[in-house]
Amino acid sequence: MNELAQILLDLFLLFTCAKVAGLLVRKMGQPAVIGEVGAGILIGPYAFGLVGRPDDALLHVFGDAETAQNALQTVYNVVAELGVIVLLFFVGLETRLHDLLAVGRRSAAVGLLGVLVPFILGFGFFILIGRPHIEAAFIGTALVATSVGITARVLRDLGVLDSTEARIILGAAVVDDILALLFLAVLKTIGNGAQLAVVDLALTGIAGIAFVVFAALIGRKVVQQYSMHLERIPEDAPLVIAIVLMLGLSVMAGFIGLAAIIGAFLAGMILAEAKEQYNLEHKVLPLYQLLVPFFFAIIGTKVDWRTLTQPDLIGIALAVTGLAVAGKMIGASLAMVGMPGRSVAIVGVGMVPRGEVGLVVAGLGASIGIISREVFSVVVFMSIATSFLAPPVLSALLARPRKREGVFGLTPSAQPKRQDSRTPDEETIYTRA
Amino acid sequence: MNELAQILLDLFLLFTCAKVAGLLVRKMGQPAVIGEVGAGILIGPYAFGLVGRPDDALLHVFGDAETAQNALQTVYNVVAELGVIVLLFFVGLETRLHDLLAVGRRSAAVGLLGVLVPFILGFGFFILIGRPHIEAAFIGTALVATSVGITARVLRDLGVLDSTEARIILGAAVVDDILALLFLAVLKTIGNGAQLAVVDLALTGIAGIAFVVFAALIGRKVVQQYSMHLERIPEDAPLVIAIVLMLGLSVMAGFIGLAAIIGAFLAGMILAEAKEQYNLEHKVLPLYQLLVPFFFAIIGTKVDWRTLTQPDLIGIALAVTGLAVAGKMIGASLAMVGMPGRSVAIVGVGMVPRGEVGLVVAGLGASIGIISREVFSVVVFMSIATSFLAPPVLSALLARPRKREGVFGLTPSAQPKRQDSRTPDEETIYTRA
Repeated sequence: MNELAQILLDLFLLFTCAKVAGLLVRKMGQPAVIGEVGAGILIGPYAFGLVGRPDDALLHVFGDAETAQNALQTVYNVVAELGVIVLLFFVGLETRLHDLLAVGRRSAAVGLLGVLVPFILGFGFFILIGRPHIEAAFIGTALVATSVGITARVLRDLGVLDSTEARIILGAAVVDDILALLFLAVLKTIGNGAQLAVVDLALTGIAGIAFVVFAALIGRKVVQQYSMHLERIPEDAPLVIAIVLMLGLSVMAGFIGLAAIIGAFLAGMILAEAKEQYNLEHKVLPLYQLLVPFFFAIIGTKVDWRTLTQPDLIGIALAVTGLAVAGKMIGASLAMVGMPGRSVAIVGVGMVPRGEVGLVVAGLGASIGIISREVFSVVVFMSIATSFLAPPVLSALLARPRKREGVFGLTPSAQPKRQDSRTPDEETIYTRA
Repeated sequence: MNELAQILLDLFLLFTCAKVAGLLVRKMGQPAVIGEVGAGILIGPYAFGLVGRPDDALLHVFGDAETAQNALQTVYNVVAELGVIVLLFFVGLETRLHDLLAVGRRSAAVGLLGVLVPFILGFGFFILIGRPHIEAAFIGTALVATSVGITARVLRDLGVLDSTEARIILGAAVVDDILALLFLAVLKTIGNGAQLAVVDLALTGIAGIAFVVFAALIGRKVVQQYSMHLERIPEDAPLVIAIVLMLGLSVMAGFIGLAAIIGAFLAGMILAEAKEQYNLEHKVLPLYQLLVPFFFAIIGTKVDWRTLTQPDLIGIALAVTGLAVAGKMIGASLAMVGMPGRSVAIVGVGMVPRGEVGLVVAGLGASIGIISREVFSVVVFMSIATSFLAPPVLSALLARPRKREGVFGLTPSAQPKRQDSRTPDEETIYTRA
């Protein structure tokens, strides 16, 4: 078990430093998530190197440094993935399908325009500066997908997951991911030099939509049907069933090509119907507290800050980041005509972070060889910069009318006592401003 | 994130199959843990191969099948390790240092004799059948270490962690692990052909003892001192601090050379002083429910049942397994003279499982080349056989005076309500029989 000793040390450092940094950052009035990502950057392999560097035991198992590094990264990715799955599952638990459908058209419009506008901006900019079409298409695609985890975390920390804006963002994230799936499918096909088959593409899209619709509608029906008959089941069964559903739908989403977190979100939303009956939120909260900080700290370890210091790149990187922000803001503005300015701003900013999704697209582009090392760095910069920009702006926009969150970055809204005392007025407080 | 899709599927299958098999096995009146390990064997790479075999995406990342297999194993090992860490942490939460010290001499005697007798039996048997001394020393060492996770799980499922026998077993497991550390240090030194340095050995032993004493005594003092002043801390802080302590002491134990779970157990025991104040058991239970099944299912995936079918080996394998059982039983009998026969049997059987510890020793012996492929298989057989033998025997010995456990393999004793209703009489019910 020798090689485990280092990995365990890494996990201990990631968790502890993320929590401490989150606490410090909160004391400065900023969202904890920034501290968690920042801690990952600081102790990660590109800065102080306390974590993320394979030690002798791991080298012994894997022979060479690169393979050992890959193995360590795989472990990190699995832990981070479990973290973001639990995060979106938890957010799903706080979301009712009914509420999402109530803002369905807005969500669809925000999702659709928030994909099209950034793609066009990115694609156009790269054509304008004389880069090849395929690279331009790649940059456009990298600007498409929102990392809803970061926004969801901030919304949850501020205790506003039940606001109209939060619902629009969550619904838009689902639409966004289905569209991003199509863009990626096109990009992969073109990148591999194959002919684009419209039929395959249509099937991919239909599979994505079918999964979401079936999971949401049928899953919900089943839960509504059976949750009444489950009175006799043992006390630990609800959480076990919740975990099975969470992992199961995540796996299915992944196999269709959607992000696993879309499945986790749907699983949470399905169980939202039964959550009060079984006190599910209360039971899932400890999983959240253990696993979610790993997701954000591990994102941080992937940030190579040296890419930021290349003077010839920084111009393009800033321009692309600007387009990434502008694209989502314009998309949201167009999709939300007639709604209050602050709501538009909240939704727009909420869609801005690209986070780990941007990093994945960048990695894919590099692995199929359609982008240069420089463009790779630009996408990484854009992903990180948008992720750091959004949380403080979102916090400021949602300027809290009351103090509700705990020092460790979690609102106690999962505690039944406090939740009961919430008045209906609070639900819409942000849309009335 | 492609290679993550398979690993996520593996984790989903491991969890779901472990839970379903655990449920079925319980319906047949056997401990759930047998079902969980059995599920791992069935779906594992040596049987149906539903999990534990790298797919194309993983092969693509790691180049060749063996490296991909190693990487997948590393992920499995990390998840399993987190599972057994949470298990022993939880068991620690249900254990008070005061209660352990009350049976301290018995524990020390059981630990000491439970190490010496099996070593002598194993060593003697291999010398008798004409094997080399170094191999005999290896077999002796492989018979030494108890896998306390399996026993702790069964004791917890039966709701008897507060019995005198459980305390003796837990204390003995700590002593056992310190002694096993010394045996392994000797074996490694001899195996590498180096001179045995008594000073180094003494330092290793002192470090192990010092860690246990300092963690238990000083940690407890600190918690007692500060837990009164923590009234003002946010609601999520206790679990965060618990997780930090659990991972931190696990890492420290690992670096000294002790099993990480010894650190996790000590962390739990330290916090046992504050658990009621912060409802800690209630908060850790969901982590237990998510992570512990992985530990047992993953042990199962490591079982190559084909080693059991080699006719020339099965005789030696059965003999070594018999000695493994006899060694612990004789050790317990000698150490517990004057106590009731059933208590002696419970403690003896409780120390029998070798589980993952045996597999680790076998792996170590193979990696430094002091054992043949055949002896490796014998140790693996012994580890698995003892792990399957102990739970049903332990269940039968502890024939339940009351029904307390849930269908999913967890007793609801962590629910404060039930715990309060427990009478002092129940604590010693098993020693009076």
